[in-house]
Amino acid sequence: MDLFEAIRTRTSYRGAYKSDPVPREHLDAIMAAGCAAPSGCNKQTTSFIAVDDPALLTELKDIVMPRIGDTAPAWILVLTRPIVAYRDRCFNVQDYSAAIQNMLLAIVALGYESCWYEGHVTDEDDLGGQLARRLGVPEDYRLVCVLPVGTAAEPVKRVRKKAIEQRVSYNGFEEKANRQ
Amino acid sequence: MDLFEAIRTRTSYRGAYKSDPVPREHLDAIMAAGCAAPSGCNKQTTSFIAVDDPALLTELKDIVMPRIGDTAPAWILVLTRPIVAYRDRCFNVQDYSAAIQNMLLAIVALGYESCWYEGHVTDEDDLGGQLARRLGVPEDYRLVCVLPVGTAAEPVKRVRKKAIEQRVSYNGFEEKANRQ
Repeated sequence: MDLFEAIRTRTSYRGAYKSDPVPREHLDAIMAAGCAAPSGCNKQTTSFIAVDDPALLTELKDIVMPRIGDTAPAWILVLTRPIVAYRDRCFNVQDYSAAIQNMLLAIVALGYESCWYEGHVTDEDDLGGQLARRLGVPEDYRLVCVLPVGTAAEPVKRVRKKAIEQRVSYNGFEEKANRQ
Repeated sequence: MDLFEAIRTRTSYRGAYKSDPVPREHLDAIMAAGCAAPSGCNKQTTSFIAVDDPALLTELKDIVMPRIGDTAPAWILVLTRPIVAYRDRCFNVQDYSAAIQNMLLAIVALGYESCWYEGHVTDEDDLGGQLARRLGVPEDYRLVCVLPVGTAAEPVKRVRKKAIEQRVSYNGFEEKANRQ
C-alpha cells in the first residue's frame, strides 16, 4: 500500500474483529516495521511480544478490565526500557511511540485494524504490569501498550479532526480561528 | 512509495543538503501526514510551523549551536501543548512522536531526507524556546523538534541496528543472547 494511503486509512478501531488468525509472516512484518523506527541515540529501547496462542490470549484478555481488543485473534504488546540516551535524558517514550506508529501503518497496509491502547494499560491499576508478569517480562522493562491485530468485523468509523489549517502555518506562528 | 519501502528507507540523515527548494505542496503533504497521526483521546496536541523563507531560516539556524540541518532549504518545527487527555494524564509526547514518525516517512516517500532533532533543541539551554520566541509562538506551546527537509547532497549512511530476533518474541518474553 502507498505510504500516504496508509497514513490516511489508519484510524483507531474499537469494534469487533473476525476470528481469522493473523499469519506469523504478517506479525513478523508488523514488528519488523516497529524495529525500523528511529530511537534517541539509536538506543533501540523498544521491544515486542506478539501473542497468538488462543489460550494465552484469553488469559491476557481476562486481565484487562474494561475489556479491549476482545475479539482480536492476536495482540502485540509493546515493551520499553528507560535507557539513558545522553547526559541524564531518556527518549524511550518517543522511541516506542514512533515504533507504534510504524506498526499501526503496517497493520493497515496488510489489511488489518488496530488501536493504540496505552492509557488504560499504564493507569494506576497497573494492568500493564500484570500482563508483563504473566508473560515473564523482567522488571526493568515496562509494558506500555496493547495493539490488537485482526480483520475488522464491523464498519470502520473515523474520528473527526481539526482542519489542517488550524494546526499548520508557514514562517511564523498564526493564531488560528479555532484554537481548541 | 510503498509503506514498507518508506519504513526501510527512512534513516537519520546528518549530511549536507542540496539548495533546491522544497515546493509548498510537498511541505503541505508532509505536515498533513503529521496531522493524520493518532493522538491520546483525539486531543490533537501537535502543530507545525514550516520555515522556507531564506532570511528567516538563516536567523533560526544561527540560534542553534552546534549547528544542525544547516544547508537544508526548509525546516519543519514541531510544537506541542500538554493538554490533559483524561484524568490527570497527558499524552502529548506520544502524540508528537507519532506525528514526527508520519512526517519522516512522508519526507522519504517524496524523495527528501531529514533527521529527528529533539534532544539538542529541548536541552537546558532551551534553544527550542529561543526558536519559538523568534516565531511568535505563545507560551503555552513548546517547540520540541526540528526536522530539516531537503534533498541529500551526500551519500545516505544507515545506522547499525540489533537483529530483529533480539527485540521480538512470541507468546512470552525471551531473554535474548545480546540483551542490549
